[in-house]
Amino acid sequence: MISVGIVGGTGYTGVELLRLLLQHPEVKVSILTSRTEAGKRIDQMFPNLRGYTDLEFSDLDIEQLKTCDVVFFATPHGVAMKHAQALTEAGTKVIDLAADFRLQDLAQFEKWYGMSHECPEILKSSVYGLSELNRDKIAQAEVVGNPGCYPTTVQLGLAPVLKSKTSLIDPTTIVVDAKSGVSGAGRKASLGMIYSENADSFKAYGVAGHRHHPEIVEALEQISGQKGVFDQLIFVPHLVPMIRGMLSTIYVDLTVEGQEADLQQLYETFYANEVFVDVMPANSLPETRSVRGANQLRIALYRPQPKKLVIVVVQDNLVKGAAGQAVQNMNIMFGFKEQLGLTGIALLP
Amino acid sequence: MISVGIVGGTGYTGVELLRLLLQHPEVKVSILTSRTEAGKRIDQMFPNLRGYTDLEFSDLDIEQLKTCDVVFFATPHGVAMKHAQALTEAGTKVIDLAADFRLQDLAQFEKWYGMSHECPEILKSSVYGLSELNRDKIAQAEVVGNPGCYPTTVQLGLAPVLKSKTSLIDPTTIVVDAKSGVSGAGRKASLGMIYSENADSFKAYGVAGHRHHPEIVEALEQISGQKGVFDQLIFVPHLVPMIRGMLSTIYVDLTVEGQEADLQQLYETFYANEVFVDVMPANSLPETRSVRGANQLRIALYRPQPKKLVIVVVQDNLVKGAAGQAVQNMNIMFGFKEQLGLTGIALLP
Amino acid sequence: MISVGIVGGTGYTGVELLRLLLQHPEVKVSILTSRTEAGKRIDQMFPNLRGYTDLEFSDLDIEQLKTCDVVFFATPHGVAMKHAQALTEAGTKVIDLAADFRLQDLAQFEKWYGMSHECPEILKSSVYGLSELNRDKIAQAEVVGNPGCYPTTVQLGLAPVLKSKTSLIDPTTIVVDAKSGVSGAGRKASLGMIYSENADSFKAYGVAGHRHHPEIVEALEQISGQKGVFDQLIFVPHLVPMIRGMLSTIYVDLTVEGQEADLQQLYETFYANEVFVDVMPANSLPETRSVRGANQLRIALYRPQPKKLVIVVVQDNLVKGAAGQAVQNMNIMFGFKEQLGLTGIALLP
Amino acid sequence: MISVGIVGGTGYTGVELLRLLLQHPEVKVSILTSRTEAGKRIDQMFPNLRGYTDLEFSDLDIEQLKTCDVVFFATPHGVAMKHAQALTEAGTKVIDLAADFRLQDLAQFEKWYGMSHECPEILKSSVYGLSELNRDKIAQAEVVGNPGCYPTTVQLGLAPVLKSKTSLIDPTTIVVDAKSGVSGAGRKASLGMIYSENADSFKAYGVAGHRHHPEIVEALEQISGQKGVFDQLIFVPHLVPMIRGMLSTIYVDLTVEGQEADLQQLYETFYANEVFVDVMPANSLPETRSVRGANQLRIALYRPQPKKLVIVVVQDNLVKGAAGQAVQNMNIMFGFKEQLGLTGIALLP
Repeated sequence: MISVGIVGGTGYTGVELLRLLLQHPEVKVSILTSRTEAGKRIDQMFPNLRGYTDLEFSDLDIEQLKTCDVVFFATPHGVAMKHAQALTEAGTKVIDLAADFRLQDLAQFEKWYGMSHECPEILKSSVYGLSELNRDKIAQAEVVGNPGCYPTTVQLGLAPVLKSKTSLIDPTTIVVDAKSGVSGAGRKASLGMIYSENADSFKAYGVAGHRHHPEIVEALEQISGQKGVFDQLIFVPHLVPMIRGMLSTIYVDLTVEGQEADLQQLYETFYANEVFVDVMPANSLPETRSVRGANQLRIALYRPQPKKLVIVVVQDNLVKGAAGQAVQNMNIMFGFKEQLGLTGIALLP
Repeated sequence: MISVGIVGGTGYTGVELLRLLLQHPEVKVSILTSRTEAGKRIDQMFPNLRGYTDLEFSDLDIEQLKTCDVVFFATPHGVAMKHAQALTEAGTKVIDLAADFRLQDLAQFEKWYGMSHECPEILKSSVYGLSELNRDKIAQAEVVGNPGCYPTTVQLGLAPVLKSKTSLIDPTTIVVDAKSGVSGAGRKASLGMIYSENADSFKAYGVAGHRHHPEIVEALEQISGQKGVFDQLIFVPHLVPMIRGMLSTIYVDLTVEGQEADLQQLYETFYANEVFVDVMPANSLPETRSVRGANQLRIALYRPQPKKLVIVVVQDNLVKGAAGQAVQNMNIMFGFKEQLGLTGIALLP
Repeated sequence: MISVGIVGGTGYTGVELLRLLLQHPEVKVSILTSRTEAGKRIDQMFPNLRGYTDLEFSDLDIEQLKTCDVVFFATPHGVAMKHAQALTEAGTKVIDLAADFRLQDLAQFEKWYGMSHECPEILKSSVYGLSELNRDKIAQAEVVGNPGCYPTTVQLGLAPVLKSKTSLIDPTTIVVDAKSGVSGAGRKASLGMIYSENADSFKAYGVAGHRHHPEIVEALEQISGQKGVFDQLIFVPHLVPMIRGMLSTIYVDLTVEGQEADLQQLYETFYANEVFVDVMPANSLPETRSVRGANQLRIALYRPQPKKLVIVVVQDNLVKGAAGQAVQNMNIMFGFKEQLGLTGIALLP
Repeated sequence: MISVGIVGGTGYTGVELLRLLLQHPEVKVSILTSRTEAGKRIDQMFPNLRGYTDLEFSDLDIEQLKTCDVVFFATPHGVAMKHAQALTEAGTKVIDLAADFRLQDLAQFEKWYGMSHECPEILKSSVYGLSELNRDKIAQAEVVGNPGCYPTTVQLGLAPVLKSKTSLIDPTTIVVDAKSGVSGAGRKASLGMIYSENADSFKAYGVAGHRHHPEIVEALEQISGQKGVFDQLIFVPHLVPMIRGMLSTIYVDLTVEGQEADLQQLYETFYANEVFVDVMPANSLPETRSVRGANQLRIALYRPQPKKLVIVVVQDNLVKGAAGQAVQNMNIMFGFKEQLGLTGIALLP
């Protein structure tokens, strides 16, 4: 049984963390902080939690947080990096669901998040929390930067071909056409996010540039060990009128070797032992609802033309794309069974 | 560990039963039948179950079903009553999620369901499975008729005033304005149910008469011990463009005693020990999403005028309104802790 | 051809007014004001208007507005009353889509809107713009208070029985269970209005009291000529996860005369000459999508019990419930054919 | 004033045709046929039409249809080709909204639609009804094959670069990631189309091959005058949980000339005189709701990388993607002003 703190429990990743952690057999959620809601019961804000917890929001008190075994930051970008040093010095592990520990390239961080990094040393020793790809390092980490939702789909969608010994794809040709439910934009009072602006409509956004682009590029370089070749990657996110769910359609040119390879087999083998990554049978059509509320990511492959590979990846942006992967990382960091507290079946319909 | 069979696993109550039972620590789902899909894996039809089960649909084989401890019928009306006798004689308990064991009045059954009852003797000894109100009988039952979704909200919404020793409401004045998500209509290829006929629109239906009306009347008579006074009950169901969720707004005139009573207190006391019924603080506004996927029913009370009581009840029609209550009844029937396998927190957002 | 000004064109009633007025053959929209967006083209904010207008938002300049024949206020409550006097003195007519000219009872106005009325004299001479019921007075009016959306459904739903010479209903028993799409709450950056808080969920709201309650009561008194008998009216609004559309289910006890009357015939006769009010055949089930985008209100009647009348009324809250009725009133005020610019067919699906 | 017949008025393109034609100043809809609903009033099936028409469905009577000036076929594939000869011989023009007159390649037609073509001679003389690109031929046509919805977005999205004198794009690199609302699948009682299977979820479909692929290829060959180079085009359609609306994201590699060209200017010039095609300012983000119910198609261009062009195209699949373009073609065929009856503004919100 470990003691857990959550900083910033008023957003969607916060309440999703609570949904998972309150049912986790090895966790006691001890502290829940909010800048704005101190003194309020969490179940007043999120009535789905009525009957499961008496927790109240408190002000962020670093001394109290130090008593936890691990602290999750479900905060805006820039908060975790203010507190990571104090916490790790006290032996408290940190899992940041924002972007403070995602990009190793400080210049990119400053460019895309508009702030200087406050603890570059800790950043250097932190681990990027894509559980399936960095499991060993996560197990040793004191600070984990939980990946962005879109980057999770792209990395797990491409890892099998990028990790292959022979060069199967042309890395300069990757196009990611990504689609997300609205909850990915968080829980903010913003005109662009209100119901009547989003329901029964569909649009692209962030075409001019999205913060997940540099994260994807850096991560693919890491996975493949190749620098520079992913700079031309195209990433166009779209907004779907649904609450949860993310689907990325990835297009990439195959090399001659790639055209001859049994890619379906390659993917199935690559993920054979992964409980949260599901390579579907050839020509399946994954739907986001097949992972609604579950820490699952499903992949399907197509070959509509001999030279092209199309990879479709689905996940719940709030679970495998955020809070679920964070709990998965916690399980790894504390030596728990990786699926502990994460075996809930997706809600369908 | 008990062995469970499910007859009719291709509908929404069927897949919801599976979602709950596959995670139930005392259950092994042994048999799953379908008239049309024998030989197909269930996770081909419902990909949310991929990784959780290898079950295949089989033809209904009564001898096989007799080897189960309990069989759930998630079938159209009229199926369970064909098999109940054979099963109970073999010592297999039956929980019917359709209407075969809801109405004790055979004439009403024939009128509303257009068929004669095939086992009136078993019907007589069967128990109406409103768990909170009939717990003791359910514990002894061989056959349980799981309540309709709307009737569950009306019964639990009115039970505290109907069970009160003093007469608090005028039973002749009850109006139930009920609203349901579309999944309540089941999983059928029907023109009226397609997406573009239901999305972004709202309507009343069944105003001329709905099968749940006689069920509600009979159940309220049972609860209150009063015959005849509920015949004038008005029940108007509406269809909400959402998948799951049900909200009933119940209007009733208060007697003089009722106007003077502390009804909020009465309700809180009545349900103080019920883990699945939540009486919210006065003037709360329950939302259906607060119970999405959870075996919870929440009640809020208002007194907009001195003489009127307004009761708002929400539940997930597929969980507390169907599959969840069925599992709750199973727990009661087999002496398990009532919340076993039913503690999942609602998915919000 | 008349010259029209719109004050406050950044909300949903504003853009809906523009959609209607830009296609109106006798209207030129000359001025469009906004406190916050002066200098911006309207079609930058609302791209559906691209190609239909070059209008830019300007600051509110009362002298400019005086050059218009009529000015619509699609503003928050309290704006129109500041300018009504100056405009009417200049011969410019005023149609307010907010509440400044809805309630004649000043105390009620202050109580519900939290402000004193700034032009009670003009209020007294203003006309309540329920087009079908007050047509003659509207034709003479200088200032029209456009009705609230919910009150429109209740008034048109009950007018035939209230205007009847014999007493057909018991006015003390009216229950209005109303349901609205989310656009009724306007276009505001508010946490409670964001997509993920409203989609795939249903709730009641305003149970403790809603501003449309006093408006309904005053209007029904006006229609029936009866004071005091509507004070016990119950009005419970609910929020539907759809953009546009409103459905009110009205429950009322019939008198003995009412039970014997041919109410279907009464309604059909009452509205026989109304182009925007459609009494549907007995037992019809009106859907909100049947009026999506159209200045139509449809009514259906049911008699589920001999003593009860159930009236279901649907409209598009932004059209017959707001901007459409405002244009209808403008047509009446300027002697145009009443359906001019309002004949668009509802968008279905 | 022309006399119009509609064959197959029970689907979504049929009711959308009616919405447009009943408001068209030069059209009288004389005949409306249905195999299954003869004798039923259309407004019983589609209550949005109540008050606009008394039309009843009749059986298909070819002699009656010959009395029309033009007959629209809003039928399944294979119906129009059975009647085209009889009608054109009688001087009645034909506009088919299905696929009978889209593909000139008979082998492709047979392959994708599973039937032989019944009037290949008429097919040869028929005109493909992409209004903006084939206007002159449409004006002379006796039979028009109205384009598929997806192909319309791809053709208008690519025409400016394909028609350019210098080669601006590499035609072998085109990827079309397309997204459609559910109404595009028609009005059919099919399990896959019901509300609870589609709401709050997103998926790809038809990845293995879609009938619009050969249509797109043939049309792009026609537009560009280049054979064979489009065979590798990738087309992946997705299903969006919304009723109407279609967005295609088109990715293509630029040639050296293309990288140096002012493509924004090129597109604006190309469509400068087109009333129904809107080239939005650089970096705009078109939403499908900006064209909901309107015969508009909007295009936006991006250059996320120097060598890549991304083109986003939106339309209402039932209007510019089907019924609206059909009416536009009718206007061209009969010498009416092209926007007659098609000037309705999109419904937003």
